Amino acid sequence: MVAKLPEEEHPKQAFGWAARDESGVLSPFNFSRRATGEKDVCFKVLYCGMCHSDLHMVKNEWGTSTYPLVPGHEIVGVVTEVGSKVEKFKVGDKVGVGCIVGSCHSCHNCTNNLENYCAEMILTYGAKYYDGTITYGGYSDIMVADEHFIVRIPDTLPLDSTAPLLCAGITVYSPLKYYGLDKPGMHVGVVGLGGLGHMAVKFAKGMGVKVTVISTSPSKKQEAVEHLGADSFLVSRDQDQMKATMGTMDGIIDTVSATHPLLPLIGLLKTNGKLILVGAPEKPLELAAFPLLMGRKMVGGSGTGGMKETQEMINFAAKHNITADVEVIPIEYVNIAMERMLKADVRYRFVIDIGNTIKSTY
Amino acid sequence: MVAKLPEEEHPKQAFGWAARDESGVLSPFNFSRRATGEKDVCFKVLYCGMCHSDLHMVKNEWGTSTYPLVPGHEIVGVVTEVGSKVEKFKVGDKVGVGCIVGSCHSCHNCTNNLENYCAEMILTYGAKYYDGTITYGGYSDIMVADEHFIVRIPDTLPLDSTAPLLCAGITVYSPLKYYGLDKPGMHVGVVGLGGLGHMAVKFAKGMGVKVTVISTSPSKKQEAVEHLGADSFLVSRDQDQMKATMGTMDGIIDTVSATHPLLPLIGLLKTNGKLILVGAPEKPLELAAFPLLMGRKMVGGSGTGGMKETQEMINFAAKHNITADVEVIPIEYVNIAMERMLKADVRYRFVIDIGNTIKSTY
Repeated sequence: MVAKLPEEEHPKQAFGWAARDESGVLSPFNFSRRATGEKDVCFKVLYCGMCHSDLHMVKNEWGTSTYPLVPGHEIVGVVTEVGSKVEKFKVGDKVGVGCIVGSCHSCHNCTNNLENYCAEMILTYGAKYYDGTITYGGYSDIMVADEHFIVRIPDTLPLDSTAPLLCAGITVYSPLKYYGLDKPGMHVGVVGLGGLGHMAVKFAKGMGVKVTVISTSPSKKQEAVEHLGADSFLVSRDQDQMKATMGTMDGIIDTVSATHPLLPLIGLLKTNGKLILVGAPEKPLELAAFPLLMGRKMVGGSGTGGMKETQEMINFAAKHNITADVEVIPIEYVNIAMERMLKADVRYRFVIDIGNTIKSTY
Repeated sequence: MVAKLPEEEHPKQAFGWAARDESGVLSPFNFSRRATGEKDVCFKVLYCGMCHSDLHMVKNEWGTSTYPLVPGHEIVGVVTEVGSKVEKFKVGDKVGVGCIVGSCHSCHNCTNNLENYCAEMILTYGAKYYDGTITYGGYSDIMVADEHFIVRIPDTLPLDSTAPLLCAGITVYSPLKYYGLDKPGMHVGVVGLGGLGHMAVKFAKGMGVKVTVISTSPSKKQEAVEHLGADSFLVSRDQDQMKATMGTMDGIIDTVSATHPLLPLIGLLKTNGKLILVGAPEKPLELAAFPLLMGRKMVGGSGTGGMKETQEMINFAAKHNITADVEVIPIEYVNIAMERMLKADVRYRFVIDIGNTIKSTY
């Protein structure tokens, strides 16, 4: 049996931009999407955020990529078709898809609304779907997904700056909630002021938490405090500032994905303080045990969130007027945007205007 | 002003065994204890457990030791005198003192019954007390301490095998409680079957938890399962066993104080699993972030416990007939015991029979 071409696998013609090899360069790509199944929602993609993991994936930096690879897991759009058994959505609804499009629905994680930790979880792009075909992400004109993995976008939220909530937003919202760092009056540090970090500031502020941004770059202070609303700013290379702030934080959301020292951050924590990693440096970090013992501190991790919590996060964002700061770009700019993202040259998230700029060639 | 000799500092003559230098060799030592203050309890020491940290301290391996150093912070005995304002104890009561004899009583930790994390916490030996004198531990005939730092030993508990509860016991009991690993039906791993580890097995079993001992030594299996009552045994160097047990544990109490890999242990945890360090390797451990993110796992620390919880632990031990497995030794054997402890040649804790073997020379 000869494997079918991407544009012949399924009945729905689709068009996107794909990386073809480890150069990571994206170019126009004809493929196909499955027919809308009875539990599926089909939607026209309007915007798709560019996540830093898209950059890793197009270049196969995690060694798991297959090509052609259509990235994108911060996808929003408008429903165009629903399956016969779809209960929650109708044509015209504003919806979104985040990092995952499938899970087993029966394991302990799934039955506890933690599909994101299901061992059989299916990623939105570059993964094998139930039918054996590869999943394609949101740098494309249409999307088909099981309604379980679709979230509703409230009308009050602008679609472009809401797209990044589907990954960056939930990635920081979930640990703030799970680790109990969401109580008004608490003091939470945010390390790294990028896509994830700026969302962490906004959500933590929305929860009534006192937020200190911790950064190697003093130049980000004004932005952090005046624009994003952080309560204070700490230059991590300034020993005096760090020393003066020791033992003051209930928790820290650490968004940095480069190798970095944890010890100074652990020092900033109060007794029972929690350092939460949401970035994943490639090499192991150094962890000194003694400082953890001396203050009953912990270093925890968190990876995105389950579907119930993702909807809760979107609803919270709508209530508190929280969206990402975005630079909206046309699809033709995507390769330059990738280069700029690599240099952290964006405040704070690129969002591709799929609806207006993607031009089908089929 | 000439500093007073240890035996002239205070009115009460006392006798113990002290290390005089970094050789760590202990020898008879005349010193003194303060008069029983109005909130103080004075007691005749009957037994004192030998903690692994005593070994570090007599040899100044943590660089904080001062000499002469009288170790011992697993101290039990019978009250001989109480101060006028002592409320909880009377002459004849069986009591114990653990790792700390002082704290500020006003900080956030102290007011939350976490004196053990108070920044001004005073260790039972080798620390400076409020009056400027150095504290001396339980390898000695009498003890004087503020009643706040004294716990009551229920009559049903044998004093010799109860002594180690004051440090080893609370050190494992506290994290089982704080990290929520005390729920019946949970599955908890215990790494390292020494003084701390064997107590962790007993307390976890007392809480109704399923316990798996994780050890590099297959020879410890029979002991762990048949004698200590562990439900199962896992040889950490056996890749097949480790693989078959991945993702099955709610938490792990890691008592190992040598440098060791955390990654295999993190792999044993379920989603939301907690790896709790109670041993403190000197060098930093390697911590891979990705496995924490992928299962919302954490690595936490814990250091002994507060006074309220220490009493709670002792009461729990009495209710569930939990004591340490001890080898009771005369004080003259203490230097050999130190050597054997270094080789982990003890099941599982040396306890010095102070009451019957210490001979005052004053």
